[in-house]
Amino acid sequence: MIKDICIIGAGNVASSLAPALQGAGYRITQVFSRDFDNAAQLAGKVGAEPVSRLDKLSYADMFIFSVKDNCIAQCIDCIPENLCDAVFAHTSGSVGMEVFKGKRLKHCGVIYPLQTFSKTLRIGFRDVPLLIEASDKFALEIIRSLALSVSDKVLEADSEKRKNIHLAAVFACNFTNHMYAVADKILEDKGICFDILLPLIDESVRKIHRMKPADAQTGPAVRGDANVIAEHMSMLADERLKQIYGIMTKDISEWEQ
Amino acid sequence: MIKDICIIGAGNVASSLAPALQGAGYRITQVFSRDFDNAAQLAGKVGAEPVSRLDKLSYADMFIFSVKDNCIAQCIDCIPENLCDAVFAHTSGSVGMEVFKGKRLKHCGVIYPLQTFSKTLRIGFRDVPLLIEASDKFALEIIRSLALSVSDKVLEADSEKRKNIHLAAVFACNFTNHMYAVADKILEDKGICFDILLPLIDESVRKIHRMKPADAQTGPAVRGDANVIAEHMSMLADERLKQIYGIMTKDISEWEQ
Repeated sequence: MIKDICIIGAGNVASSLAPALQGAGYRITQVFSRDFDNAAQLAGKVGAEPVSRLDKLSYADMFIFSVKDNCIAQCIDCIPENLCDAVFAHTSGSVGMEVFKGKRLKHCGVIYPLQTFSKTLRIGFRDVPLLIEASDKFALEIIRSLALSVSDKVLEADSEKRKNIHLAAVFACNFTNHMYAVADKILEDKGICFDILLPLIDESVRKIHRMKPADAQTGPAVRGDANVIAEHMSMLADERLKQIYGIMTKDISEWEQ
Repeated sequence: MIKDICIIGAGNVASSLAPALQGAGYRITQVFSRDFDNAAQLAGKVGAEPVSRLDKLSYADMFIFSVKDNCIAQCIDCIPENLCDAVFAHTSGSVGMEVFKGKRLKHCGVIYPLQTFSKTLRIGFRDVPLLIEASDKFALEIIRSLALSVSDKVLEADSEKRKNIHLAAVFACNFTNHMYAVADKILEDKGICFDILLPLIDESVRKIHRMKPADAQTGPAVRGDANVIAEHMSMLADERLKQIYGIMTKDISEWEQ
């Protein structure tokens, strides 16, 4: 089993993954962030050395890239030559294995946590599905054992499958969250607290644990209630929100199972 | 305290409300539905008489209209003359008090449960916010006491406030549910089970119990990750889904707190 892990990145994913790995018995050797303060903040939590330059990286068994998608390739290029024999993995849902192609790294892969992270909220990592992929058997075994040490839901998924899951996650997480933000704004404009919607939101989610989302649909769009729909459209002053309301309603009413 | 309640309607709301009222000690006298079988099904559960014609209604202290929004006015018109002294309330989020204007009913109001109901899933009614409104003090007290008997979250809200809450609820419940349906379809097309998204969905909701939805946003749109957004757009074959992805992404990226 490998022991020493270097975390490249100090954002939301890195800030959740690093403590989980430490809790599973790994040693976090270094935390890299271009912003030294960010590196220091996370490094402090996991007893690692903070670094803000990639040429300061020292040997570890595994390097995990938890940086913005479009920074991964650049980070790979900056890995010092003497470290290239280690195992490298990125944590992105949408970057394929091709990011490692033609680079100097021998053992590489992906460990994508299908979850929404924030620095302030701690997550029970054992429930987080981890989608893994690797360039070779050696890397796959290292990555699998690392993934299993922190999560009970480890799944192998190639880049295409992972990208589709990531796309679905954008709808199921980011776009639903945006609908909450819109609801919050509508209520705030009328001096009403968002909390009033929480039982409804909780129940909507409880439902889709038990039935297909399309079967769980309620409301004016699926009922085809033209009067309510017209009144709602007239209540929305913001053109963009009108457009969202219109297209969602049309899509719900014409949805084919 | 009033005792006898007649439920007009046998849909999702009626099917949840009637048993809750019965559990709180009210007697459900009749259940009306134009479809006798529907009436009989719900009536059987609460020990009431099923009726499929409004001229068969007999006296009750209160009549609750839980029918489609555009059927409420018509139901009001069909209430037999000798029953017009009772208290009448509808359960719609989007129909204002004006639906009772110029009608023969003396005491009327609204009891709107802010929740998504289905016939198959039972709901803990005590957590369901009930928005109430009435034409006069007498009706308000009857409606308030009935509401408090089944829920701990009873709020007075005039029609305008209630309509805005209902509009917000459409975004927070129906439109989010549609995003789940889209995610389900994307995964299904690739042979992947929707359940893989449940931990992510649960966590997204847990977040907005603790922070403002706009502050909880993650993903490519809020990060401004143009590469991922372009790739996602290219992965969506369906024009409507492309359109939804585009407008949601634009709205998230330009969102002002």
